[in-house]
Amino acid sequence: MQGALTPQQIVDCMYRRDAFSQWLGIDRVEIDKGRAVLRMRVREEMCNGFGIAHGGIAFSLADSALAFAANSHGVKCMTTIASVQLFVPIRAGDVLTATTEEVYLGRKTATYLIRVYNHDNQQVALINGQVYRSDKAWTLEDCK
Amino acid sequence: MQGALTPQQIVDCMYRRDAFSQWLGIDRVEIDKGRAVLRMRVREEMCNGFGIAHGGIAFSLADSALAFAANSHGVKCMTTIASVQLFVPIRAGDVLTATTEEVYLGRKTATYLIRVYNHDNQQVALINGQVYRSDKAWTLEDCK
Amino acid sequence: MQGALTPQQIVDCMYRRDAFSQWLGIDRVEIDKGRAVLRMRVREEMCNGFGIAHGGIAFSLADSALAFAANSHGVKCMTTIASVQLFVPIRAGDVLTATTEEVYLGRKTATYLIRVYNHDNQQVALINGQVYRSDKAWTLEDCK
Amino acid sequence: MQGALTPQQIVDCMYRRDAFSQWLGIDRVEIDKGRAVLRMRVREEMCNGFGIAHGGIAFSLADSALAFAANSHGVKCMTTIASVQLFVPIRAGDVLTATTEEVYLGRKTATYLIRVYNHDNQQVALINGQVYRSDKAWTLEDCK
Repeated sequence: MQGALTPQQIVDCMYRRDAFSQWLGIDRVEIDKGRAVLRMRVREEMCNGFGIAHGGIAFSLADSALAFAANSHGVKCMTTIASVQLFVPIRAGDVLTATTEEVYLGRKTATYLIRVYNHDNQQVALINGQVYRSDKAWTLEDCK
Repeated sequence: MQGALTPQQIVDCMYRRDAFSQWLGIDRVEIDKGRAVLRMRVREEMCNGFGIAHGGIAFSLADSALAFAANSHGVKCMTTIASVQLFVPIRAGDVLTATTEEVYLGRKTATYLIRVYNHDNQQVALINGQVYRSDKAWTLEDCK
Repeated sequence: MQGALTPQQIVDCMYRRDAFSQWLGIDRVEIDKGRAVLRMRVREEMCNGFGIAHGGIAFSLADSALAFAANSHGVKCMTTIASVQLFVPIRAGDVLTATTEEVYLGRKTATYLIRVYNHDNQQVALINGQVYRSDKAWTLEDCK
Repeated sequence: MQGALTPQQIVDCMYRRDAFSQWLGIDRVEIDKGRAVLRMRVREEMCNGFGIAHGGIAFSLADSALAFAANSHGVKCMTTIASVQLFVPIRAGDVLTATTEEVYLGRKTATYLIRVYNHDNQQVALINGQVYRSDKAWTLEDCK
């Protein structure tokens, strides 16, 4: 399709407008069609007084990965349902990496598994998320 | 039990040490044994360029409500699994209220439903979360 | 709408054609718009050698309740996602009652909570299910 | 440990006592430590009048796979939570294969992904299940 945006262009455009992913300090390590690898460092302001990250932090990183992977196909998607399992406490200073696996890509929905690892390569969380795929394409206009 | 902390004392203590709940701007509207009602206002820095909140925001509010409700019984708990459904987009400026329902209270685990409403009283999200209940009691020492 | 089927007609029609719900021995205690109460007795052939029901039994009862509640509005629905929590072992001889709560009714999806109780009124399972709502109406033709 | 049962012995013992897995017609294709591959053929009595399998069928197959994989390590486990996504309708006559992936193996809990495929190698369902790991070992006594 003429003028269709690449996965990288779409995710750049999403990221530039995504104030919360920026607050989290998310790095885009790899972006491809249906796939994203993200990384972030857990800061004290994401944690409680015992140095353990709020449960929302791993979920938020995973939800950004889900959104980037799903939207990279070129149509606008939004998360509808996710389940999250937290295996190991996440601590201030941990560097987290989230990887996505596209389990199902349908016309109206798609499903992704997102695995979150710490810098010791322990899997700290598993997220299973579904998006609704709209019929609106990403365009250059969205990126302005 | 002599010296046992009240639900309010436990949640005050948790909140004072919970930098991320503070960043979210969470107000504790009601705290009771096994129950929490929380409120927050969605700010632009929690949203994308289209004014829609990141999926992690509703989840984080709900996870704080879950943590407060579960810990209010006096033993330390941590979220192990949650599922989240997002029904309606959440926007900058929305005032969200989260309420909890204790579905199951066992010896080692407990389960809560958390419903998130916007200021038009629309249910915007439903979270179903399980905690692991440790055998460590909350004490005055934890609150210093 | 002229000729629209009632919730009872739709569920009668579904049940008559649902060989597995019949094998489970499901009774329809109450059927209404967006709501179903079902009951069944757990038989030995649903259990293991220790007299504990297979995890699929509570889920299957709940999925029938979900299907009946969702379809009762008059359009054909199918389950897309569900999460199930099992709190208490279910045993041969237990009489289970499933009740539904319609959490969200949208145009394309709807969400239900299904609670399963045993005859001691203990909640043995909680299911959170989403259906896809097609644009096909239930008609008398479907019931022949 | 002297006299410890092999994964195959444990699963043989479970299967022989599992009347519902037998009713489903489940074949054990592969059993190993932390892993199971199962197969079954969908029969008319598992379906509705439109030839579509009840949602409980895919879940039940997956829950058997989860139970076999989890118990194969030698300690008795039971499912506590699962989420299930159904991507493609399952029909009478379909031959389903369920494979497991051990995502996390902790002391008290373990988590598995179970993927269900039809005979066209389409993924028809994804189940994400957690078990509670008791401290009771499987013994020869259990198999009598």
